[in-house]
Amino acid sequence: MVCLLVGTSMLFSLPFGFPIFANRTFLPAAESPEYGGIQGLLLGTGISFVIGIAMLIFGRGSRGAQLFRKEAMAIVGLSWVLATVLGALPYYLSETKIAPDQPMTFIEAMFESQAGFSTTGATVLTDLETPADVPHCILFWRSFTHFLGGLGIVVLFVAILGQGSAGKAMARAEMPGPSKEGSQPRMQHTALLFAGIYCGLNVILTVIYMLFGMTLFDGLCHAFGTMATGGFSTYNRSLGAFESPSIEYITIVFMILAGTNFTLLYLTMVGGLKRLLNDAEFQTFLGIILVVTLGILFYGIRHDDPGFDPPGQGFRNALFQVVSVITTTGYGTADFDTWNNFARGVLLVLMFVGGCAGSTGGGLKVIRHVLFFKILRREIELSYRPRVVRPIRLGQTTADDPAMLSGIMVYFCLILGIFIASWMGLVAFEPNETWGYSEVVSVDPEGNQTVAISKGTTDEKLLDCASAVAATLNNIGPGLGVVGPTRNYAEFSQGAKALFVWLMLLGRVEVFSVLVLVFPTFWRRT
Amino acid sequence: MVCLLVGTSMLFSLPFGFPIFANRTFLPAAESPEYGGIQGLLLGTGISFVIGIAMLIFGRGSRGAQLFRKEAMAIVGLSWVLATVLGALPYYLSETKIAPDQPMTFIEAMFESQAGFSTTGATVLTDLETPADVPHCILFWRSFTHFLGGLGIVVLFVAILGQGSAGKAMARAEMPGPSKEGSQPRMQHTALLFAGIYCGLNVILTVIYMLFGMTLFDGLCHAFGTMATGGFSTYNRSLGAFESPSIEYITIVFMILAGTNFTLLYLTMVGGLKRLLNDAEFQTFLGIILVVTLGILFYGIRHDDPGFDPPGQGFRNALFQVVSVITTTGYGTADFDTWNNFARGVLLVLMFVGGCAGSTGGGLKVIRHVLFFKILRREIELSYRPRVVRPIRLGQTTADDPAMLSGIMVYFCLILGIFIASWMGLVAFEPNETWGYSEVVSVDPEGNQTVAISKGTTDEKLLDCASAVAATLNNIGPGLGVVGPTRNYAEFSQGAKALFVWLMLLGRVEVFSVLVLVFPTFWRRT
Repeated sequence: MVCLLVGTSMLFSLPFGFPIFANRTFLPAAESPEYGGIQGLLLGTGISFVIGIAMLIFGRGSRGAQLFRKEAMAIVGLSWVLATVLGALPYYLSETKIAPDQPMTFIEAMFESQAGFSTTGATVLTDLETPADVPHCILFWRSFTHFLGGLGIVVLFVAILGQGSAGKAMARAEMPGPSKEGSQPRMQHTALLFAGIYCGLNVILTVIYMLFGMTLFDGLCHAFGTMATGGFSTYNRSLGAFESPSIEYITIVFMILAGTNFTLLYLTMVGGLKRLLNDAEFQTFLGIILVVTLGILFYGIRHDDPGFDPPGQGFRNALFQVVSVITTTGYGTADFDTWNNFARGVLLVLMFVGGCAGSTGGGLKVIRHVLFFKILRREIELSYRPRVVRPIRLGQTTADDPAMLSGIMVYFCLILGIFIASWMGLVAFEPNETWGYSEVVSVDPEGNQTVAISKGTTDEKLLDCASAVAATLNNIGPGLGVVGPTRNYAEFSQGAKALFVWLMLLGRVEVFSVLVLVFPTFWRRT
Repeated sequence: MVCLLVGTSMLFSLPFGFPIFANRTFLPAAESPEYGGIQGLLLGTGISFVIGIAMLIFGRGSRGAQLFRKEAMAIVGLSWVLATVLGALPYYLSETKIAPDQPMTFIEAMFESQAGFSTTGATVLTDLETPADVPHCILFWRSFTHFLGGLGIVVLFVAILGQGSAGKAMARAEMPGPSKEGSQPRMQHTALLFAGIYCGLNVILTVIYMLFGMTLFDGLCHAFGTMATGGFSTYNRSLGAFESPSIEYITIVFMILAGTNFTLLYLTMVGGLKRLLNDAEFQTFLGIILVVTLGILFYGIRHDDPGFDPPGQGFRNALFQVVSVITTTGYGTADFDTWNNFARGVLLVLMFVGGCAGSTGGGLKVIRHVLFFKILRREIELSYRPRVVRPIRLGQTTADDPAMLSGIMVYFCLILGIFIASWMGLVAFEPNETWGYSEVVSVDPEGNQTVAISKGTTDEKLLDCASAVAATLNNIGPGLGVVGPTRNYAEFSQGAKALFVWLMLLGRVEVFSVLVLVFPTFWRRT
């Protein structure tokens, strides 16, 4: 059983070698490249291998043991934690700097690592373009964690390692969203398919990017970020740095593909576009994108928001930002935090929508929202027509498994609960200094001090914290205010960063497989 | 069937006479009282009676007809709408002014009327203390609508008019919260009990208030506001105007009583305090109040928030505001909007908790939250122990009706959906002028205009709108920012006020009985 963990470590170790290659050969010879990152990567590889081999030796006895649901869940959860820790080593060991002269703490390295694996794309790095702060090989490792995380590391595991009940159980815990296609015996086949399509799209996108003027390095990194719906870029201005409408439209198309159910993509390749356009979830997905984009655009133009002027560029900006948020990618080409409050609010709500089930996107998934609204409508009708029988339909099929339907309600409520608890915790424990707060102390003639909280600078704390929690829990990245598209998570306290690591993990593995790890009864034998 | 509606009208008409009496006799002879309100009240009474009698005549044929669930729901919903319209007449006809020289529109009168009947206590009146703007008899009518709404007008109906299936069906739609005590045959008895306890507590509280220095007028109005968990006061500074810690502590006790299940209050009167303290819902209710109060207090003291200095007064302020919000009363003795962001955030979340089931409090009700958390905990456990059987317990009883449990999830999700839709709608359609926004137009030498949205003044729009929706949907009253405890809803546009009228209605009758009225299929014969 434990031997599965070994695979984790080794798989993670392998790519550590890559960046060196990338660094030597592919980089534009611009600024003298810093080689500090290489030692960190090599050291990280070494540590990972040692742990991996140690586990292989000590875990040999249990090889081939039957995996039960509970153990599978523990493995999924713990694998992610281990991956995050190992993935953090290169950042930490190479002394990557979140700002000039400010090397990363281990928590910050964990944050960056988790943001990569969970394909969130949130960052604590202030300046990506100074190799002295962030070596290029580290930059590559950062984007490569997206690639690894993208499809779900565990889905890869199912294909490579998962056999028998282990693979099935792990896939059940990990496969994103309540996908119904693909019965259990076909799980391995499905996993391989996913991997193939995913890698293929990555290659295609890299080539297209290069045709439109990117270097191989930039092309690879941004393809990883797009297809994994991650959002790490190699530039401070994110994808906006290229100032190329073509690249933006291409990215929009591929973000939508990455946010689509991969099974559906396969079926489309086999059965043609009709299959794609007839899918109820995909229709809703496209519909939301269109309606929200046009809504934001018209509202912005009507209210003379300078962010949407001229309208052509406004449309591109609105569409890009909407697609980036709904697919939980988090690339930016415009600072939506400076848009009007309606646009900001809609994008905040949109964070909870997410991509389609079975895609690399995070969030609650479109299909859950579709079923959610259908359930609510039925319940309202049931309140005045208690005996009406109206099955919940999804395209041509009927989705009426009561367990699944109640599971959707429970999932919404669970996310809501986690969101509110984390939000309040963050508001309580995050010092006001993060918002540039300063205490105003006036001393009256008798020497009595009056302490006043300088409001105005911390006004947005409630909203910013809400958006930061939403952006990490749903694996998006940027939010509003201090975590807006042009800013980052560097200013948060260490505790807050640890919380974000936890939220990104929760969001990625869909809550259950990680949340149970902190339940005492989970570890008790029964 | 329609004759039930008649009763509505007549009951509403009766109290219109009261204020005249109150105005002539009990008012402190201070400022020359304006008698403008009396004509409005008399006219309102007349119109109500005419409509009532007309309905009585035209509806005579259907007397004694059987009531089905659907019709009962329609009656509950339409009665509330009718009550709101009739209740708005006095405000409108007497030309009550929301600010000097600014008479109420009919929508504003509806708002004030609905805020009274739904026991929300939100107001559009800026200055309550100038009789030229708001005559005293109108002030009394305003508080009296709380009294009428308080117990639920329809619960009164059950006792007075409801016979056979009609009464039962209406009570089922109206009785707040998933109360389990009181089987159907005892419904009338229960309703009478509620009414008795409620009136008794109103009388007791009025007497106590008078002993502590209030006039009969103030005593009655504030007793109405407290026992109905409404929150209308007769002073601009709300209950803080009395500057009396005793009155505040008394109000805290009675707000808690008003937020407690009335059946439980009766059982306590019969069976002693032990019964009260052993109740799972009441324990949680008190627990939340204590924990949140102490949390806000300690956080405030630790961060030198001037709102909690000195600690004794800080404790009283924190306790009062917490109780006021959780019971959905909405009285204020301190401006919690100037407190730190943690306190503001917690109070915002607390708005969704509400009082106990079977009380006059609004919100989601404590019992729903208790069951909500128990369900989530069980679901998490089920995810790794699929075969565990763990019934959901509530004190000594087991609450395991699957329909009720899924109903709770649905209710949470429904409130969430309504909240988000209303929030976004409000943000979109409420002009920035409400937040003192002004356009900045700069003209360059060539005559090209540059239009910029002046941010900073509208920054809180998202948060303020969220709190306004939360405060009306949960029947509280004051929120954050522009609707903070020292401010009111006057600045919102007419459309927004209409939305709030709808939200207060939805919140009060627990969504279903009103929401169905806008469903086309509801009106279709099947």
